[in-house]
Amino acid sequence: MIIQDTIVALATPSGSGAIAILRLSGLDAITIAAEVFRSSSNKDIRLVKSHTIHLGNIVENHKIFDQVLLSVFKGPNSYTGENVIEISCHGSVYIQQQIIQLLLRKGCRMAKPGEFTLRAFLNGKLDLSQAEAVADLIASDNEASHQVAMQQMRGGFSNEIAKLREELLNFASLIELELDFAEEDVEFADRTQFKELLDRIVFVLKRLIDSFSVGNVIKNGIPVAIVGEPNVGKSTLLNVLLNEERAIVSDIAGTTRDTIEDELVINGIGFRFIDTAGIRETKDIVESIGIKKTFEKITQAQVVIYLVDSYQLINDSEQLSRLKIEIAKIKEQFPLKPLIVLANKADKLDDAQKESVLKEIENTHLLSAKENSGVEELKEQLLSFVNTGALRNNETIITNTRHYDSLLKALEEVQKVQFGIQSGVSADLMAIDIRQALYYFGEITGQVTNDELLGNIFANFCIGK
Amino acid sequence: MIIQDTIVALATPSGSGAIAILRLSGLDAITIAAEVFRSSSNKDIRLVKSHTIHLGNIVENHKIFDQVLLSVFKGPNSYTGENVIEISCHGSVYIQQQIIQLLLRKGCRMAKPGEFTLRAFLNGKLDLSQAEAVADLIASDNEASHQVAMQQMRGGFSNEIAKLREELLNFASLIELELDFAEEDVEFADRTQFKELLDRIVFVLKRLIDSFSVGNVIKNGIPVAIVGEPNVGKSTLLNVLLNEERAIVSDIAGTTRDTIEDELVINGIGFRFIDTAGIRETKDIVESIGIKKTFEKITQAQVVIYLVDSYQLINDSEQLSRLKIEIAKIKEQFPLKPLIVLANKADKLDDAQKESVLKEIENTHLLSAKENSGVEELKEQLLSFVNTGALRNNETIITNTRHYDSLLKALEEVQKVQFGIQSGVSADLMAIDIRQALYYFGEITGQVTNDELLGNIFANFCIGK
Repeated sequence: MIIQDTIVALATPSGSGAIAILRLSGLDAITIAAEVFRSSSNKDIRLVKSHTIHLGNIVENHKIFDQVLLSVFKGPNSYTGENVIEISCHGSVYIQQQIIQLLLRKGCRMAKPGEFTLRAFLNGKLDLSQAEAVADLIASDNEASHQVAMQQMRGGFSNEIAKLREELLNFASLIELELDFAEEDVEFADRTQFKELLDRIVFVLKRLIDSFSVGNVIKNGIPVAIVGEPNVGKSTLLNVLLNEERAIVSDIAGTTRDTIEDELVINGIGFRFIDTAGIRETKDIVESIGIKKTFEKITQAQVVIYLVDSYQLINDSEQLSRLKIEIAKIKEQFPLKPLIVLANKADKLDDAQKESVLKEIENTHLLSAKENSGVEELKEQLLSFVNTGALRNNETIITNTRHYDSLLKALEEVQKVQFGIQSGVSADLMAIDIRQALYYFGEITGQVTNDELLGNIFANFCIGK
Repeated sequence: MIIQDTIVALATPSGSGAIAILRLSGLDAITIAAEVFRSSSNKDIRLVKSHTIHLGNIVENHKIFDQVLLSVFKGPNSYTGENVIEISCHGSVYIQQQIIQLLLRKGCRMAKPGEFTLRAFLNGKLDLSQAEAVADLIASDNEASHQVAMQQMRGGFSNEIAKLREELLNFASLIELELDFAEEDVEFADRTQFKELLDRIVFVLKRLIDSFSVGNVIKNGIPVAIVGEPNVGKSTLLNVLLNEERAIVSDIAGTTRDTIEDELVINGIGFRFIDTAGIRETKDIVESIGIKKTFEKITQAQVVIYLVDSYQLINDSEQLSRLKIEIAKIKEQFPLKPLIVLANKADKLDDAQKESVLKEIENTHLLSAKENSGVEELKEQLLSFVNTGALRNNETIITNTRHYDSLLKALEEVQKVQFGIQSGVSADLMAIDIRQALYYFGEITGQVTNDELLGNIFANFCIGK
């Protein structure tokens, strides 16, 4: 355990609630807490067992700040690996502030963002990718992102990397040994086995690198553009999609979810609707989205929904041909981007008219946002664009750009080594590339690190974690 | 312990933070938690000691929801007096919801507002006024309201009431005993002692009832009206007063306080500025607050600040006489309401001019909102209007309207008894009044109660407390 000053922070969300948790960590956490805590049963918390809870008052000079529950965790059996105290006080902001100020007077200092988790990393309780997963876990707002963060926090990803790194390290030392006997021309490292290992590493790295496209979708959601003429029902469609979800979410009292404006979660995957502010604002005003602006929007999207008024199309052949031209333009410009043509207001059509609409335009779906029909089919189709195979199979998925970069660099170095073996380069040159590959592996798990890297990672954490 | 179903709720503020606490209470709290919790050290939480903390995972069918710390409190040694479990999970709203849904599936139900504290009351852990103080404590946002709520929660007030009630009860039983021997004309209750007790009770009740005016100020703040012509600096004054406080408050990172718009705390007492929205909005527009509207505002206030532009007054004798007339009108209409005339922009005056302003208008203070001079004097004067004697002397202060009502009714009944003794009414009539007085005492502490009363009280609590 590294000797460090004692930090304090509010660990629960700011604002008033039933209770709030203040967290202290550091060598002096327990002795500082003992100075301000009077146990109701006259216990000395410096002498109690780890992982026990004590009722009492927070006091200073006979002034009682609050009646609290105090939890004692003795290092190294704590989150940070240091001595940790958690104070569960009444949730008034005033009380939180008063107790924090008291603890600052007693020698604590305010924790920086992520400093508890940074200490957990520095004390060997978590590796770096696990520490990063803690922040991802707190930020997770749907099943997929939660599952991936959970797996990463439990070490799934770093175990895989650490295992490959160790095997590579074994060969590296054999190769470096050869250098010591360079004049004798011996080969300690079995080249066949080494090639096999390199092939395996390349295979794993490529799979992980490929998984980033899924991981990115999971973490950030899939951007969807809704385009179409004014008054075809874009705003209604959005409301139908989003309100249903809100209704589900608001079922559980006490956990009012901050619904993200214009993000829809289907089967645990998030879909973000792009530039919907405009759609909502211009509901009743004649809007004029030029083809240029529409194209900009499509460029940002991964999936495009082209919403049309099916009733207008049936009754206005001019509009129908204009639509066909526009769809053709979009397909020409974005041949690989999934495009759903959604014929809204289908409730106004009879069966013959419906069939006619479906025949006239390729890949069309009928929808009645008003009657809520066709919405489930739309959701299914949106979901079909996501490759969730990796997720279902519980494979390791990369969601972190930093990991992605390190993996790409590691792959490059390993491929250099592969090429080196094939072309018979000398062991000393090969050793340099191997060392470089090991470096990038180590960057992911934090075996290789520096202050700037750590600063960047933990600055994005919330305070109190 | 009353056998009841097991309730669950989020106890920390809603939203994302480093950690969140879910709280369960009820006979089955521990067995339900044991179904979904897998201890990292394979402990069975049904067998562990009370007040211990355990690391592990929340799981269902091999699916891991989160890694958590679980605290076990065995009834009756818990907040509610029942078995209580607290789950400290990662603070994502998604995780909170998932675990709550899981616990609901396992047989918990969502707690109603204040239901944990209601159970604590029903199980005899708190009396009713202590339970009410818990909500006050959470709502407290300054030193005075915190101190009063803390004292009430620790039983200061109810002890005083309960003691009086017990003494009165003793006499009541003696008097009722006399009724059984009515024909023998005996007096078990010593009338002199009884009169002394009644005098003492009346004294205490009157003191408590009087304290409500201070208590109300402490709980709700003192309403202050700022009136004056346009452009005299009302908005600047408000900003100077409030920003200073905000600066102090925002010193502590991580506990961003929701500063109440237009509430100023001086030495722990809150001052609320009335109708400041108008002041801010009309900063640069010529506003025209008629004398009628000004009077409405003053009616709501407990203290009036009349802000004038001292530089204008010096240079415009017409304005000066208009001001004198208006001040005279206000004093005539509200003779008892404290009025501070605040001569702003004093930085523009030389010493002779300053003296002239002070001489011309009674009870005037010089201020320069711009140069921040005179602000401390203003604060001191505001504070001088509050009788904080009771607070300083640590006397019991009533802040709750319900208690105030019950005390008034109890006083009325006790005074009837006093009158009865003086006028020699019969013991049976006196007994009725005493019983009624006892009833109102009991209403305060909850010894006498009913479902409607409890419903009203706990409906105002937050969920999770």
